[in-house]
Amino acid sequence: MTVTIDDLKPIMSPEVARHVSTNTLMRARRRDTAQGLDIALVGVPMDFTTYQRAGSRYGPAQAREFSRTMRSGHAVTGVMPFDLCRIADIGDAPVSLLDFDGTIKSIEEFFGRIVDAGALPLALGGEHTISLPILRAVATPPRGPVGIVHFDAHPDTIDHIDGQKINVATVFRRSVEEGLTDPKRHVMIGIRGTMYDSEPFDWARAQGMTVLTIDDVEEMGARGVVRKIHDVMGDRPVYVTFDLDGLCSAVFPGTNNPEPGGLSIRDSQMILRGLKGLNLVGADFNELCPPADPTGNSALVANNLMFELLCVMAETVRGIANETADR
Amino acid sequence: MTVTIDDLKPIMSPEVARHVSTNTLMRARRRDTAQGLDIALVGVPMDFTTYQRAGSRYGPAQAREFSRTMRSGHAVTGVMPFDLCRIADIGDAPVSLLDFDGTIKSIEEFFGRIVDAGALPLALGGEHTISLPILRAVATPPRGPVGIVHFDAHPDTIDHIDGQKINVATVFRRSVEEGLTDPKRHVMIGIRGTMYDSEPFDWARAQGMTVLTIDDVEEMGARGVVRKIHDVMGDRPVYVTFDLDGLCSAVFPGTNNPEPGGLSIRDSQMILRGLKGLNLVGADFNELCPPADPTGNSALVANNLMFELLCVMAETVRGIANETADR
Amino acid sequence: MTVTIDDLKPIMSPEVARHVSTNTLMRARRRDTAQGLDIALVGVPMDFTTYQRAGSRYGPAQAREFSRTMRSGHAVTGVMPFDLCRIADIGDAPVSLLDFDGTIKSIEEFFGRIVDAGALPLALGGEHTISLPILRAVATPPRGPVGIVHFDAHPDTIDHIDGQKINVATVFRRSVEEGLTDPKRHVMIGIRGTMYDSEPFDWARAQGMTVLTIDDVEEMGARGVVRKIHDVMGDRPVYVTFDLDGLCSAVFPGTNNPEPGGLSIRDSQMILRGLKGLNLVGADFNELCPPADPTGNSALVANNLMFELLCVMAETVRGIANETADR
Amino acid sequence: MTVTIDDLKPIMSPEVARHVSTNTLMRARRRDTAQGLDIALVGVPMDFTTYQRAGSRYGPAQAREFSRTMRSGHAVTGVMPFDLCRIADIGDAPVSLLDFDGTIKSIEEFFGRIVDAGALPLALGGEHTISLPILRAVATPPRGPVGIVHFDAHPDTIDHIDGQKINVATVFRRSVEEGLTDPKRHVMIGIRGTMYDSEPFDWARAQGMTVLTIDDVEEMGARGVVRKIHDVMGDRPVYVTFDLDGLCSAVFPGTNNPEPGGLSIRDSQMILRGLKGLNLVGADFNELCPPADPTGNSALVANNLMFELLCVMAETVRGIANETADR
Amino acid sequence: MTVTIDDLKPIMSPEVARHVSTNTLMRARRRDTAQGLDIALVGVPMDFTTYQRAGSRYGPAQAREFSRTMRSGHAVTGVMPFDLCRIADIGDAPVSLLDFDGTIKSIEEFFGRIVDAGALPLALGGEHTISLPILRAVATPPRGPVGIVHFDAHPDTIDHIDGQKINVATVFRRSVEEGLTDPKRHVMIGIRGTMYDSEPFDWARAQGMTVLTIDDVEEMGARGVVRKIHDVMGDRPVYVTFDLDGLCSAVFPGTNNPEPGGLSIRDSQMILRGLKGLNLVGADFNELCPPADPTGNSALVANNLMFELLCVMAETVRGIANETADR
Amino acid sequence: MTVTIDDLKPIMSPEVARHVSTNTLMRARRRDTAQGLDIALVGVPMDFTTYQRAGSRYGPAQAREFSRTMRSGHAVTGVMPFDLCRIADIGDAPVSLLDFDGTIKSIEEFFGRIVDAGALPLALGGEHTISLPILRAVATPPRGPVGIVHFDAHPDTIDHIDGQKINVATVFRRSVEEGLTDPKRHVMIGIRGTMYDSEPFDWARAQGMTVLTIDDVEEMGARGVVRKIHDVMGDRPVYVTFDLDGLCSAVFPGTNNPEPGGLSIRDSQMILRGLKGLNLVGADFNELCPPADPTGNSALVANNLMFELLCVMAETVRGIANETADR
Repeated sequence: MTVTIDDLKPIMSPEVARHVSTNTLMRARRRDTAQGLDIALVGVPMDFTTYQRAGSRYGPAQAREFSRTMRSGHAVTGVMPFDLCRIADIGDAPVSLLDFDGTIKSIEEFFGRIVDAGALPLALGGEHTISLPILRAVATPPRGPVGIVHFDAHPDTIDHIDGQKINVATVFRRSVEEGLTDPKRHVMIGIRGTMYDSEPFDWARAQGMTVLTIDDVEEMGARGVVRKIHDVMGDRPVYVTFDLDGLCSAVFPGTNNPEPGGLSIRDSQMILRGLKGLNLVGADFNELCPPADPTGNSALVANNLMFELLCVMAETVRGIANETADR
Repeated sequence: MTVTIDDLKPIMSPEVARHVSTNTLMRARRRDTAQGLDIALVGVPMDFTTYQRAGSRYGPAQAREFSRTMRSGHAVTGVMPFDLCRIADIGDAPVSLLDFDGTIKSIEEFFGRIVDAGALPLALGGEHTISLPILRAVATPPRGPVGIVHFDAHPDTIDHIDGQKINVATVFRRSVEEGLTDPKRHVMIGIRGTMYDSEPFDWARAQGMTVLTIDDVEEMGARGVVRKIHDVMGDRPVYVTFDLDGLCSAVFPGTNNPEPGGLSIRDSQMILRGLKGLNLVGADFNELCPPADPTGNSALVANNLMFELLCVMAETVRGIANETADR
Repeated sequence: MTVTIDDLKPIMSPEVARHVSTNTLMRARRRDTAQGLDIALVGVPMDFTTYQRAGSRYGPAQAREFSRTMRSGHAVTGVMPFDLCRIADIGDAPVSLLDFDGTIKSIEEFFGRIVDAGALPLALGGEHTISLPILRAVATPPRGPVGIVHFDAHPDTIDHIDGQKINVATVFRRSVEEGLTDPKRHVMIGIRGTMYDSEPFDWARAQGMTVLTIDDVEEMGARGVVRKIHDVMGDRPVYVTFDLDGLCSAVFPGTNNPEPGGLSIRDSQMILRGLKGLNLVGADFNELCPPADPTGNSALVANNLMFELLCVMAETVRGIANETADR
Repeated sequence: MTVTIDDLKPIMSPEVARHVSTNTLMRARRRDTAQGLDIALVGVPMDFTTYQRAGSRYGPAQAREFSRTMRSGHAVTGVMPFDLCRIADIGDAPVSLLDFDGTIKSIEEFFGRIVDAGALPLALGGEHTISLPILRAVATPPRGPVGIVHFDAHPDTIDHIDGQKINVATVFRRSVEEGLTDPKRHVMIGIRGTMYDSEPFDWARAQGMTVLTIDDVEEMGARGVVRKIHDVMGDRPVYVTFDLDGLCSAVFPGTNNPEPGGLSIRDSQMILRGLKGLNLVGADFNELCPPADPTGNSALVANNLMFELLCVMAETVRGIANETADR
Repeated sequence: MTVTIDDLKPIMSPEVARHVSTNTLMRARRRDTAQGLDIALVGVPMDFTTYQRAGSRYGPAQAREFSRTMRSGHAVTGVMPFDLCRIADIGDAPVSLLDFDGTIKSIEEFFGRIVDAGALPLALGGEHTISLPILRAVATPPRGPVGIVHFDAHPDTIDHIDGQKINVATVFRRSVEEGLTDPKRHVMIGIRGTMYDSEPFDWARAQGMTVLTIDDVEEMGARGVVRKIHDVMGDRPVYVTFDLDGLCSAVFPGTNNPEPGGLSIRDSQMILRGLKGLNLVGADFNELCPPADPTGNSALVANNLMFELLCVMAETVRGIANETADR
Repeated sequence: MTVTIDDLKPIMSPEVARHVSTNTLMRARRRDTAQGLDIALVGVPMDFTTYQRAGSRYGPAQAREFSRTMRSGHAVTGVMPFDLCRIADIGDAPVSLLDFDGTIKSIEEFFGRIVDAGALPLALGGEHTISLPILRAVATPPRGPVGIVHFDAHPDTIDHIDGQKINVATVFRRSVEEGLTDPKRHVMIGIRGTMYDSEPFDWARAQGMTVLTIDDVEEMGARGVVRKIHDVMGDRPVYVTFDLDGLCSAVFPGTNNPEPGGLSIRDSQMILRGLKGLNLVGADFNELCPPADPTGNSALVANNLMFELLCVMAETVRGIANETADR
């Protein structure tokens, strides 16, 4: 039995009042699997190695709760993603809180099934480490190694922490080593804060990664960043990973390791919107940490940015992106 | 197709980690209707006349979110309600935020369908006004007029507020006038605080209601209150309504109109547990107001008390209550 | 008995310590009516149709409490509004929480008395719906239909919600239909977020309204927006309505329906300051919702913006605005 | 012009909605002076020597704001204080934040005028130090030295802190030295926590003060404490001072120096109610520190306890207390 | 070089203002090792398996911060622990956040050094799992197997979670299996809440453990519980472990897995005080989870209870306990 | 015994987990005095005259606690301050909470010892008043009068408040009168908000101070401000004082007297970074008020800005600043 776009139109207020019953990511309909979908929304509540402030395990739950404020179309661009393709929330990838290795494995398998179903995954973490098992599922040949559009305060290219090779700070060192991502098509956006030493930065640059510090972003402007991304990515497959600590801590306190002076919400929106036309194969937003912002203001922002990318992904699916992309 | 107890065993951690996916009331399974159920858990997010602090519309949502901490059995009494009968969360009664009269009507109809399906409703509000349409569904002859076990700081027997006849303060004046509840089998527990004048108290006593102020409760002890309730109720049908402001404001701040110096959690647990053996036809907990306690500590307490009553109701369903009730 | 400017000089610290006794809007003196005033500060704690997060009923109370930080002059422009004209806080318009229609009526009457007294009203809500009864009082012929400077995330031009014709989302559809406001002299500033569909936007544009999305504001800059407003408004009467959700949710979380990525505080200040020279007939700020920001940081911002407009209105009253306005 | 009881009936909801306009202590009417009053409600926002957590300067403001929940009668005892005598809020005693000595002096003078007007003062602080200048006004011969009913976690009988003789910890050493209070008629209730050394306790006992630790209170019960108080006080003048840290920190976190394991709200209510029949000459509640509990739950409790004592004081004024007091 | 009691007198306000410089557990002096101490205060910020709400890693930090309110003596009992023996804060046991096994091992070694130095450890967690490595250090023959006084909502006798044998829920199954603790001298206090099934309770009882549910505690009273503990423990070595979720969630929300309706602060104080006379060999308080109570009210309670036990342990060290213990 | 750079390398995670043991300013090593240091980090928890919201006494404690997130190098500029010179946290200057004059004196003496040791002080308050005693120590001839780079919302040039000559609002009137600071080399950055009257502004300008309002800052840009500062300061001694209310209240709510619409974090970072090349003799950050932002987000920002200046000061010490400063 096939699913149609009409089957998946989100139920909107006033048809059902916003505060009634449980919610879903982007207020999409809930499906058990990715079968028949174009875009699968997924939560990945993994939370092992966030040493500053744990709690990203509740990221998907809080994002779903704060989706109550969402409507189905983009008020500025006019894009109606749920009219363009088949989108649903397929729940959370299975995770354990005691079995790290098992969790990494089960996330990879879960996303493998999404890929097999022909859907694009749009995930919400959970700690940034989730990008590694997702990439293992998404960036297998011939698709991978993929290009990476990487919003973050930190490069996440440390070799290891205390001998541990897989954690929030090592993801893109591993992904390069495993041939999942192409360092020459890797653009970091928003890098800043403090560091132990410059080795992870030196390594990244030596691999050919483009490291845009927050100073670079301010210098280039959102449009300049968008141009740079398109130049680097070309038309080969691209994966987007948005560590929400890329945003300034003052506008996004709800994260494990906040850093003052980062990306503004507006710049983030404009850069995400500018990804239109890229060959997107999946994306994740991560490091939403509810205990660090019980007001939910950060979840509101996370949802808002995720909706920007959902619009772009929906246009990608419909193939209307390339024609109209205005860089 | 019939539903069995085994179909409805709650999924428990570690099978699924607590923070994964959306939640339900009491972590029960989710069903679309009450068909085949013995006990139907329902949210009623109505929120019109809570003039102090609005927000009880989010009561069911917060209670579901905080059910993540729940397990399936009672650690002190050993009761396993989900082993005794068929229990599920059937979602929220339909409410509007702009149409008061329509909301009252649709709640009544929703509970009418639960009654028709032969299930006992256990509801969570939402403002206390919800008891009126629920009683209209539950307390129709020959079942009604029913007895009322009524936990509250306030008698809710005001005649009208500013001409308005249906609101949080008038519920049990209306229910008596409509023949839904029997004032001679109405026990209020925890009355206190400040009043405009004594008329609503005088009216209640004149009707034959038993008004246990918090002083009376302390004097009688939880056991004395339980004895009193059983004496008044006999074996005819009883409905339980728990306005959570019956609890002391210091342990339950998350409500519209908190009053210091009320019921303790322990006394509330013991009185609820003591309802075993009554002929229960339904129940509601109400006035959980999340914006008044964003920490969720109040939701934790609401869930805990609701579970106490769920155990009693499950025993009622299995008919084991009467035999063993220890008054 | 006439009131003079000297009678109404705000009592300032250290004469009276900031935390002593109750407060008023802008720390102005308290008067019972608008008689003899040039500008009447008013609270309008109406809160019926704010379906997301109720609580704007406490907006005026929180704004008064947070006025403790205010002093009487503008540190950048040097304007001393209380030296320019007679300003006082005349308390709150009478509202009910149970009688919607009566509340709409009594707000209109209350503002009618302000207009009759010859004072300009500067109001603080309360839900955005208050603009409709205020306009009914203020924009009667020959003054109306008035031009509208409208800060907001949402156009508020929906035809109805679930059949309900008067609520937060329909205000400016009604005001045009009733001939109170001139759609050709209506400038929206800060529009963004998500929408159900484009109909309300299409309708607004079809009427001739100027819809400046947040993208437009960023493109034009605050000065460009100010120029546009003056071009559209000319020298005919203008009413200013500032839905505080026009501000970015990260800097103004204390509102019913916050939207990320909106107006900055600085741009809002500069645009308000740029209204100097317009023929102002009244203004409201609305949707300050204290339970959504118990820290009061949002109230601080609301007061700050209201003071910017108070300076402009005081200059308008003194007639010094036209001469010096620097567009 | 005389003031009558009818002039001072509090305006109650629904006549005026609770959230409208500014509030007063106990929702009483606002008067400028104590002339013609029987009981004068006063705020004393002094905040100099609260070394742990400053902020009690906002105590009166928060208590007024949280009086929105109050009604005019006692729901359990049926006492209607505003029907018994003339009660009004006369605002705050003048305080400075930079001039300690001047503040102590101006509080004394302010309360002197209340005494001269023949009214009983019922004050809300502010730091506990306020009791000293109030006693200087209230306990002058022939009234003084007065007996003291003293709720507190700490004895406040330290000789000096770092040479400073007047501060929160020395009040009752000074009051005895100045002949304002009679140590033999001084009952402390709720003493506990940690101490630097036993000297202040030894001194208190040596003077003949009755020190009821929290262990003693639990041993004697509220009724035993009431009996003890009446035995000690007899029918000579009594002043009541309630340092709100006498309450357990878990139910009253909103104070400068909270101590776990203190008085319950219920016991406090019952002991206050039991003061009926004493020859009361004034009272203060103190150490409500809003920044330590921005939820206002503590202010709610402070108002509740203050209302208990207001009922007793109103009965004292009417002379009905002695006849009916049930010890 | 020996350390004396005088060397370790805590620096107290006013000598140094409370808010100056960093703090220590109980405001004790800071030492690098346990050499020369009688009682070693230790933080154990381990936080791996707290699946509900992580964050107990910050328990010791918050407890130190909130020690600013502490003074050196007990105001009710008069005990001055720092006058009785040599007490210091020796910092935190080394933990990792990524290496579970290494952390367990390093905690055991750290406490081994305390035992070797002849000091009694008084630890603050961190998750409850810390008790296992501490017991491995403390309860080696000939001292062990030791008796356990165990405050908790949960028995922590589950066999495994998802195959994982060492975590917060299995501690006392492991400790019995390893011969560290004697199940016949194990008293649980405060058991309640919900359970998956009764197996862990059955196992505990089958081993001879004394399971006092919260109902039992209320029935017996604090004195009855104390008598029971002394009867079970006799004069052989005893270890005290206080899982702070044993307290009612309403008075101690700052924990991983709060349960409503638990121990009161008063009962906890009285039972701890009643441990006087036992042959104490060490103790831990655990599951203080700061992100779950950023107000710090829970840390205040944890410190208060820890001080009660410190007094008892100091008396134990001085050998004055046995003579005077009043059961 | 000399101290070397290697002795003072901060202990960093993962060597020691971030949440272990107490913290220091900038995670530097702790020393008892400034002997042998190049830069001395100091807390100054003075809190007397902050009349709006007291609590800056906890500023140093909160900043130390939130230093847990810091690493040792600057991720954008690559500066490693702890590799350039000898830096340590030498604790808090001694303050009293009851003795204002004594506190002013002891701060001056404490900083005198730092100056005598040849170290540059980098202080964190505490109220802004601390700048006066620090300047008395630092700006004695021949060093002073010094130039002042002064970030602030307020000019702090009021003559007196209620007769009191030394408080948060008068610091730079006193410093000029005492010949400590040169008004012609005084640049204020971020001035805005409300004022009592223009006298303090007029006085400042008459003395030759450069007053950059927030409008001026926006007009000039961060680079323009940096150029202006260098032009005004030349190569004579400069002291930096950063009142954190210079930042916009929306990004820095944790302060005594927040003002909306101020400096952004980015501009503040860029201006501080642009101070490279100045002849710095000391600096303070002040008015971090923890009770006004218990989330600690403001402390995070304060630490971030303080680290920017630490980098510049470390370069100053090494003499590499002048050569490379890029204006």
